[in-house]
Amino acid sequence: MSIREQLVEYRDGDTLLEGFLCHDESRAGPLPAVLISHAWGGRDEFVERKARRLAWHGYAAFGLDMYGKGRRGRNPEENQALMLPFVQDRALLARRINAALAAVKGLPPVDARRVAAMGFCFGGLCVLDLARSGADLRGVVSFHGLLKPNGLKPAQQIAAKILMLHGYDDPLAPPEDVLAVAKEFTQAGADWQLHAYGHTLHSFTNPEARSPEGGMSYSDRADRRSWHSLLQFLDEVLR
Amino acid sequence: MSIREQLVEYRDGDTLLEGFLCHDESRAGPLPAVLISHAWGGRDEFVERKARRLAWHGYAAFGLDMYGKGRRGRNPEENQALMLPFVQDRALLARRINAALAAVKGLPPVDARRVAAMGFCFGGLCVLDLARSGADLRGVVSFHGLLKPNGLKPAQQIAAKILMLHGYDDPLAPPEDVLAVAKEFTQAGADWQLHAYGHTLHSFTNPEARSPEGGMSYSDRADRRSWHSLLQFLDEVLR
Repeated sequence: MSIREQLVEYRDGDTLLEGFLCHDESRAGPLPAVLISHAWGGRDEFVERKARRLAWHGYAAFGLDMYGKGRRGRNPEENQALMLPFVQDRALLARRINAALAAVKGLPPVDARRVAAMGFCFGGLCVLDLARSGADLRGVVSFHGLLKPNGLKPAQQIAAKILMLHGYDDPLAPPEDVLAVAKEFTQAGADWQLHAYGHTLHSFTNPEARSPEGGMSYSDRADRRSWHSLLQFLDEVLR
Repeated sequence: MSIREQLVEYRDGDTLLEGFLCHDESRAGPLPAVLISHAWGGRDEFVERKARRLAWHGYAAFGLDMYGKGRRGRNPEENQALMLPFVQDRALLARRINAALAAVKGLPPVDARRVAAMGFCFGGLCVLDLARSGADLRGVVSFHGLLKPNGLKPAQQIAAKILMLHGYDDPLAPPEDVLAVAKEFTQAGADWQLHAYGHTLHSFTNPEARSPEGGMSYSDRADRRSWHSLLQFLDEVLR
């Protein structure tokens, strides 16, 4: 094993973005790739840790950047300000994450025919919107993602298989949103799955989430279960 | 590997029952055990195939018997007639499946502290009711099970972890039943999960189910996904 980490600049129009690429150079390439879409704070160490774990499993992992090179929030107010333009303009969101997909497909270690994407919280919404856009990739996995439809014209076909890993008590994605997204993806003809975990709040994969009264809390149990489901899903769609 | 298959008689009061035990004698015991609860037709070859696969994985698998030694349906009308008394009398159902649990715990190859149960269709309902009864086992897994609450006095504590593997288009367990069971198990404080598969009907694990217009159809995809989730769950609760 020989893990290499690199920062990779790429662009969405005039916006300079910076991703984090991590892969095992000792493996014969090209490698299946997994994009990792960050939560509302921007690309951070949490994403890098996930990328390293995926690199151990043989994937070229790419922590993408929705906000612009070096742009990160330092507190909830800044995070919110960074996220808001994308939540309000889902066409912008779709364009931005499709730029990451295009960038990854052009990277030397990557097998462009075997790409999936995963994301956390806001990043979950991003990868679901990537699937909704009809993008050409194998699958997307949302961890405690927002499930709200984007209101855009549906893609002719949703190519990506969809896995949603969901805390059933997540106040940001209540049962009515679960029913709505199930209906949406069924009508779209998408291959979708949703794993709901009881007694589980928002941000269940994030060890720093410790605000059950605010609706977000780490769950060791849901973290492990969802990680297993991720690996099984990647094995299905990328091998 | 040295797989042994045995028929095992046991009783629920005056009723003689006959289970199918399958385990690998070459493994050092005692072994973790998995009860398999049959669909409406009674204990059949489908159950035996699942038991053999679990035996390969190192479990003592026990195809239980809800109906009585040799009692099986030969057509939907007979299946319905066999099932109906249990669906109408959920206390009887709970007693009958608890008898199987007690029998399994007393079998020589079995580690009585490491037992789980799984079931298909009506058998899914049975293992959920086993959990609902407060029975002392590690976990239960329902495959396209009926989700209706049993209306009995809730157990003081649901000890078993619960995994429901669910076809989202199953007409026997519509979205309102999913919401209701999520609420029920949340209020009961149970450790529950539900995996919903899009575009998936009732009986998705049964290769002989070929009646999409009747709401039941085999799905190779959901069959494989649910089997992986089962093995992952058993690994979590029984190892």
